[in-house]
Amino acid sequence: MIKLYGYWRSTAAYRVRIALNLKQVSYSQHSVHLVKDGGEQHSPGYRGINPQGLVPALVDGNTQIGQSLAILEYLEERYSKTPLLPSKLADKAFIRQLCQIIACDTHPLNNLRVLQFLSNDFNIKDSDKTKWYHHWLALGFAAFEALLKKQAINGPYCFGTELTMADACLIPQIYNANRFDYPMENHPLLAAINEKCLKLTRFQDAIPENQPDAV
Amino acid sequence: MIKLYGYWRSTAAYRVRIALNLKQVSYSQHSVHLVKDGGEQHSPGYRGINPQGLVPALVDGNTQIGQSLAILEYLEERYSKTPLLPSKLADKAFIRQLCQIIACDTHPLNNLRVLQFLSNDFNIKDSDKTKWYHHWLALGFAAFEALLKKQAINGPYCFGTELTMADACLIPQIYNANRFDYPMENHPLLAAINEKCLKLTRFQDAIPENQPDAV
Repeated sequence: MIKLYGYWRSTAAYRVRIALNLKQVSYSQHSVHLVKDGGEQHSPGYRGINPQGLVPALVDGNTQIGQSLAILEYLEERYSKTPLLPSKLADKAFIRQLCQIIACDTHPLNNLRVLQFLSNDFNIKDSDKTKWYHHWLALGFAAFEALLKKQAINGPYCFGTELTMADACLIPQIYNANRFDYPMENHPLLAAINEKCLKLTRFQDAIPENQPDAV
Repeated sequence: MIKLYGYWRSTAAYRVRIALNLKQVSYSQHSVHLVKDGGEQHSPGYRGINPQGLVPALVDGNTQIGQSLAILEYLEERYSKTPLLPSKLADKAFIRQLCQIIACDTHPLNNLRVLQFLSNDFNIKDSDKTKWYHHWLALGFAAFEALLKKQAINGPYCFGTELTMADACLIPQIYNANRFDYPMENHPLLAAINEKCLKLTRFQDAIPENQPDAV
């Protein structure tokens, strides 16, 4: 059975949970506590699976994969019955561009290790960390919404009526934005997509609070 | 003909140039000056192509794509004769994981807009910017090298004798590291791969200094 190493609040792990649920793949969860004992992701045991020391990691037999988008692409080919990418080449590129706006240009600037580095090594105070966090989120979400408008997407999801990897990336990032009191009013289309997705059981089952290691 | 909107020194555009050259695809270059007039990437004209206002963007007929990894995946399917991904699913995941260590967890923390934000909005002085830059580079390169070792890769390239997307991502990041005086001694395997790749004409033709808009 597929094993997912993750953490309830990790938005990158949340992306993978959504994809696994949408594809109806059974999997077992293995919690890697990102804070306890300085972070279990740095333990030699976990680094044996993912030398980068970040979650998530997916283990499928002898195959061990880190990086959430690499995992989504792997699942896409391995479980192709419920595709999360459109069939046309140009549409695939559009969806991947949306995913990367989140996974390359938004989340990596705002994740735990960056916020910790700003506090510990740059003495950045909490209010400035919020400014930092909101700044990159605002840019990422504005680009995401502008791209949806350019392609005349009006919901209910990021690719109209088809659920895709883009929804699996967007919904966790909005969860994180809410956690850090980021106002979603400037991004009405994204807020509407979030509402629609969270009505679906397969998204509900993936939300952080519904995971076995949630505190 | 394929159009590439980029900038000579952008490492994300450099990745795409390498891929286009390896696949022997002819293309025309359109320079987007990232500094002049506050950055041409913010102009309405360019944002019409890529609403995110970042380079690169690839235009193929009516298809306009931003995000370098989305572009690499598009080129992979569009020009499949010279693949830059291995054929086995697990190997593909390995190469994509390497790419994302650079494109998600290293470069986005160190690119121009982040360094500008640290200076302008956080009054971070130049020596601390170097500390920031080297910190994320050290983590990214260490993870990249650890992953190569885990898969028993000893060069000449990131996937042994096959050139892949991972080389297209790694070589530009090392170019950038050299520009910011980052010592590569800690990453001997990456330094050796860099040397081997740069002996190849198709990489040479892609280096920033050999672009029409190089200063």
